Amino acid sequence: MRITIQELENHKGEDLTVQGFVDNIRDLQYVQFVILKDETGKVQMTVEKNEENQALVEIISNLTLESTVLVEGTLLDSPKVKLRGMELLPKKIEVTSTAPLELPIDIKNKDAALRETRLDYRLLDLRRDENNLLFRAQTLILNAMRNYWFDHGFIEINSPKICAQAAESGAEVFHLDYFGTPACLSQSPQFYKQMAMAANFGKVFEIAPAFRAENSHTSYHATEIQMIDAEISWITSCSDVMDMEEDWLRYVFKTLKEKMGDEIQEKMGIEISDATPKFPRIPLLEAKEIIKEKYGFVGERKNDLERKEEELICKYVKEKYNSDFVFITKWPFEARPFYHMKDSEGYSDSYDLLFKGLEITTGAQREHRRDILEQQMIEKELDPKDFAFYLDFFKYGCPPHGGFGFGLARLMMQIFEIDNIREATFIYRGPTRLNP
Amino acid sequence: MRITIQELENHKGEDLTVQGFVDNIRDLQYVQFVILKDETGKVQMTVEKNEENQALVEIISNLTLESTVLVEGTLLDSPKVKLRGMELLPKKIEVTSTAPLELPIDIKNKDAALRETRLDYRLLDLRRDENNLLFRAQTLILNAMRNYWFDHGFIEINSPKICAQAAESGAEVFHLDYFGTPACLSQSPQFYKQMAMAANFGKVFEIAPAFRAENSHTSYHATEIQMIDAEISWITSCSDVMDMEEDWLRYVFKTLKEKMGDEIQEKMGIEISDATPKFPRIPLLEAKEIIKEKYGFVGERKNDLERKEEELICKYVKEKYNSDFVFITKWPFEARPFYHMKDSEGYSDSYDLLFKGLEITTGAQREHRRDILEQQMIEKELDPKDFAFYLDFFKYGCPPHGGFGFGLARLMMQIFEIDNIREATFIYRGPTRLNP
Repeated sequence: MRITIQELENHKGEDLTVQGFVDNIRDLQYVQFVILKDETGKVQMTVEKNEENQALVEIISNLTLESTVLVEGTLLDSPKVKLRGMELLPKKIEVTSTAPLELPIDIKNKDAALRETRLDYRLLDLRRDENNLLFRAQTLILNAMRNYWFDHGFIEINSPKICAQAAESGAEVFHLDYFGTPACLSQSPQFYKQMAMAANFGKVFEIAPAFRAENSHTSYHATEIQMIDAEISWITSCSDVMDMEEDWLRYVFKTLKEKMGDEIQEKMGIEISDATPKFPRIPLLEAKEIIKEKYGFVGERKNDLERKEEELICKYVKEKYNSDFVFITKWPFEARPFYHMKDSEGYSDSYDLLFKGLEITTGAQREHRRDILEQQMIEKELDPKDFAFYLDFFKYGCPPHGGFGFGLARLMMQIFEIDNIREATFIYRGPTRLNP
Repeated sequence: MRITIQELENHKGEDLTVQGFVDNIRDLQYVQFVILKDETGKVQMTVEKNEENQALVEIISNLTLESTVLVEGTLLDSPKVKLRGMELLPKKIEVTSTAPLELPIDIKNKDAALRETRLDYRLLDLRRDENNLLFRAQTLILNAMRNYWFDHGFIEINSPKICAQAAESGAEVFHLDYFGTPACLSQSPQFYKQMAMAANFGKVFEIAPAFRAENSHTSYHATEIQMIDAEISWITSCSDVMDMEEDWLRYVFKTLKEKMGDEIQEKMGIEISDATPKFPRIPLLEAKEIIKEKYGFVGERKNDLERKEEELICKYVKEKYNSDFVFITKWPFEARPFYHMKDSEGYSDSYDLLFKGLEITTGAQREHRRDILEQQMIEKELDPKDFAFYLDFFKYGCPPHGGFGFGLARLMMQIFEIDNIREATFIYRGPTRLNP
């Protein structure tokens, strides 16, 4: 069994095999120090320049940074060694792969290369310690999300990504030829998670890619994103959806804070939000009133919040309720998709969740009554014939239901205060970036 | 908070609200019985035909099967009621959606409709109890898979599905127009999980859709599948990959058996495999010898196993080692992709995992040395120029690594003895099926 570099603590005094990248080399007059790293940590290898070690010294003299080695040797307890008080004395060094003397980007110094150059060499860029931490944290977040849903009886669905119809707007869809039939890539699992409700799946979730053919070059758009979706049946209003999302996020943030909060604080200087305080729920018009009264700001759009307003209402909520989260409720139906249910006052029974100044989710109760759904399409100047496939979901009995969706990268950006989605995605896809 | 029908056990004697589909109606001379179901179970609602109940009786008289209702009433402890010894006496019934009197398929009787008709009405087909069980089991399996990897320090990756190049063969790829540039849909995350190894991610996994433009109409092909992929660094041979996969599957099957084994046995008559016995590892040529000696059968292909041989070697292993799993090792390099590493004897250092008579995984150590990889391409009559993008992954140091991939639906088919992939997939996609 492989021993990771992190585990070496428990193997002091042993003869063992260690593998890793060459992170640093100091070749001095009488001794050579090599720092090895793997995904778990770093360790020092020490070779004295004496006759016995001639072959090893030769190997290290020719070694390049970022090459990989397999080392057989003895792990010494050496309290004087700064790096973890241990050092590896090699008996055999095998160079398992060789990096060139010059790398195209400096992986020790993020700012030494332009972002686009770093993205060209993403595999080197990802070797930076910060990225290791980021994607370990993302793994933990995804795991906590799914475990919460699993523990609460949700079924995981895998909805198709090749579809006959577009789920939302026809314009921003990638088209493909499907054995001679026109097809498109799914923009959202919206329709299929609703179909799962009609199929008596009760509660479902899906974390999967979604595709947007938007020719946008902003810092928070991508053409391929990871969508996080949940949908629940037998609700009586979108409050039930908010209750679920709030409880779920509380669990996710609690897990992240407990398991990696200190490490993230130490290495990135970022405090993971405390999601314990109840997330306030403020109707849109009331939020606009507050922003006007407290900050003297009036947004341009009556039916929506602009970025500035999102920031201000979050500032207010943070000061007043000590919460980084706020639900904005009671949206004008004009501002929302046709499939949102209307409440008794004619508002869309839906919400946006804002987190640290940015909208991260839209959630809603869906209209599950076929006749009303058809009316709402007409009201939105859509042709029900174009949605016959979707309308059929509501033909054979369908529970009242609702849910939410949001993008993983956007959540990561907000949590880790990353200013560009390109840095928050394993491999970014945009209109001018299809590589690597 | 919503009370599920399963939870009613703990609410006997209470006034409460229950929602569900109408599963059955018996309208007798003096009494009406309605069976309600949600995703968790069933319960009986009883209405005596008396003056006080007139409005309720009226509603039930007009109720259709598979409609949905919201019921406010009292849950009575009624030991005489066959279904769970309880009954719901309604005070108010609200019909939340109405199903037509005739449904296009009979959801109580699978065999009453052709498979293709059932797939047309998949949302009704999925309401069958058997499918509820199947997708709950799949959820548990996926959760166990990911939890194992999470607990063992793997990073979850989300590799891009829109790619500039095809990963495996050019022929069976869906093409799309990407802002004027030709692109294709990913057939496999193979290249990107290897890139993650070069990025010092150490150990990664991904469960995500993969796309195959194969015009195949067999019972085990689909154009869109869920691929399960794992890749690990710092290995010394493909034995390390087998060790990981074996330990992982042992955990997954143990979890499935413990949590749902009895229910699956009872409702489907299927015994979940015991994955405790060590999975035998048999070189291909030895397996062929055994099949010849024990069963007098000789396959047509020298470098591969045909279905009959897979079945026979599994039969042998089951009898001799009491294992439903067997690794077939030491494959001729001619039979394997260019990126498999060769062992010291020139064999591909790779394996197939067979389970209950069918190959479910291919795993291998990958060739991570750029120059040898290039030679192996040439040996396979591939042009390294076509793979420049991939070869670059190995330019800047890359750990020795290996991994495996397999299809979720195929695993589900083998576990649950389902004869057609169309029945083992939430929404199936094939050359002639793009709906629903």
